[in-house]
Amino acid sequence: MNIGILGSGIVAKTIAGKLDSLGHAVKLGTRDVQATLARSEPDMAGGPPLRTWLETHPRVTLVTHDEAAAHGELVINALSGQGAIPGLRSVARRLAGKILIDVSNPLDFSNGFPPSLTVANTDSLGEQIQRELPDTRVVKTLNTVNAFLMIEPAQLAGGDHTMLVCGNDAAAKAQVTRLLKEGFGWKDVVDAGDITNARGTEMYVVLWARLFGALNTPMFNIKLVR
Amino acid sequence: MNIGILGSGIVAKTIAGKLDSLGHAVKLGTRDVQATLARSEPDMAGGPPLRTWLETHPRVTLVTHDEAAAHGELVINALSGQGAIPGLRSVARRLAGKILIDVSNPLDFSNGFPPSLTVANTDSLGEQIQRELPDTRVVKTLNTVNAFLMIEPAQLAGGDHTMLVCGNDAAAKAQVTRLLKEGFGWKDVVDAGDITNARGTEMYVVLWARLFGALNTPMFNIKLVR
Repeated sequence: MNIGILGSGIVAKTIAGKLDSLGHAVKLGTRDVQATLARSEPDMAGGPPLRTWLETHPRVTLVTHDEAAAHGELVINALSGQGAIPGLRSVARRLAGKILIDVSNPLDFSNGFPPSLTVANTDSLGEQIQRELPDTRVVKTLNTVNAFLMIEPAQLAGGDHTMLVCGNDAAAKAQVTRLLKEGFGWKDVVDAGDITNARGTEMYVVLWARLFGALNTPMFNIKLVR
Repeated sequence: MNIGILGSGIVAKTIAGKLDSLGHAVKLGTRDVQATLARSEPDMAGGPPLRTWLETHPRVTLVTHDEAAAHGELVINALSGQGAIPGLRSVARRLAGKILIDVSNPLDFSNGFPPSLTVANTDSLGEQIQRELPDTRVVKTLNTVNAFLMIEPAQLAGGDHTMLVCGNDAAAKAQVTRLLKEGFGWKDVVDAGDITNARGTEMYVVLWARLFGALNTPMFNIKLVR
């Protein structure tokens, strides 16, 4: 299917590479295509700059946010926490009626690592996005793990751990759950409820960041034992 | 050993019963002993009022906060989120040099269930308590599970799930970890770092409350898969 991914960072390209390998037609959206292609430094995980990555993924194209959002029957928000609302607002009319998978977190690194959140406790970025896009079916998921685990959970303990989804539209959650299971290989996907539960999964990320510090690896996740 | 538990709710009496069964000398502390003994209604889980519970646990006594704190070589804070700081401040001199296990959460039910937190993101109740009691070695733990799982983790999946501890004093964390493992039966206890990591475990409780709603049972926990 046609999938648009908003963002050009590690999460965006990791998901793009996986969806491309699954046979989907993927377009990555960025604010300024030429500026993004001009970047020559490695990404934050030491991977190649996007222009090099695109050479090894010739079916994936880098376009504007607007083109990526228009292209996608399904759209994924992989923008930064700060970039999410302005980026999505600029393409709101392209997203009407569509499913938007929101993988972003409202991380605040202004005091360094570990981060706090820019919104928490009585609201969440997922809810802000749903309010900004009332005609879009927002499904929050994947924001609780490292990019590499998002698309290949079997890398850790054979996939014996849990992914949460939340959102207001049951059919949208069911479709995203199928993608997570059949596309990415998640074995245990739990519906955590409506979009207000984004508060829970985003606030968990504060614990995640601190466990990352304690465990000294980002390759971990929680299994919901019940 | 002599253990004082501040609180008279479900968490306090559940931990008291377990520690009593392990042979420890336990005193439960409450603000007003006569008022607590006068209560005849069941507790929030439908269990007997404390005065009835005490009859079936004759070695456990109900005393003032001050007496319980003075009695304990180890003290446990099982007060409510709102009650914790005033309750602990009133017995601060009794706690100097001691380990205080903090199991409380800063829950705010003013908008009903699920709760938000009264402090989050850039501070935590665990940190507030450590600042209030600079001469006490605060170890935050057990606040991420239901009272019945706290003291009997094997009730769920044979105990194959995780408990986190955090605090500034390594020896205190090691002693508490021994109690969790050898006393309560926790198999996997992870040191999540210093007391600022109470932010992480307290913010996780927002997710916990929402999963409680989604799963319709409090008998669940997370396993840290790494």
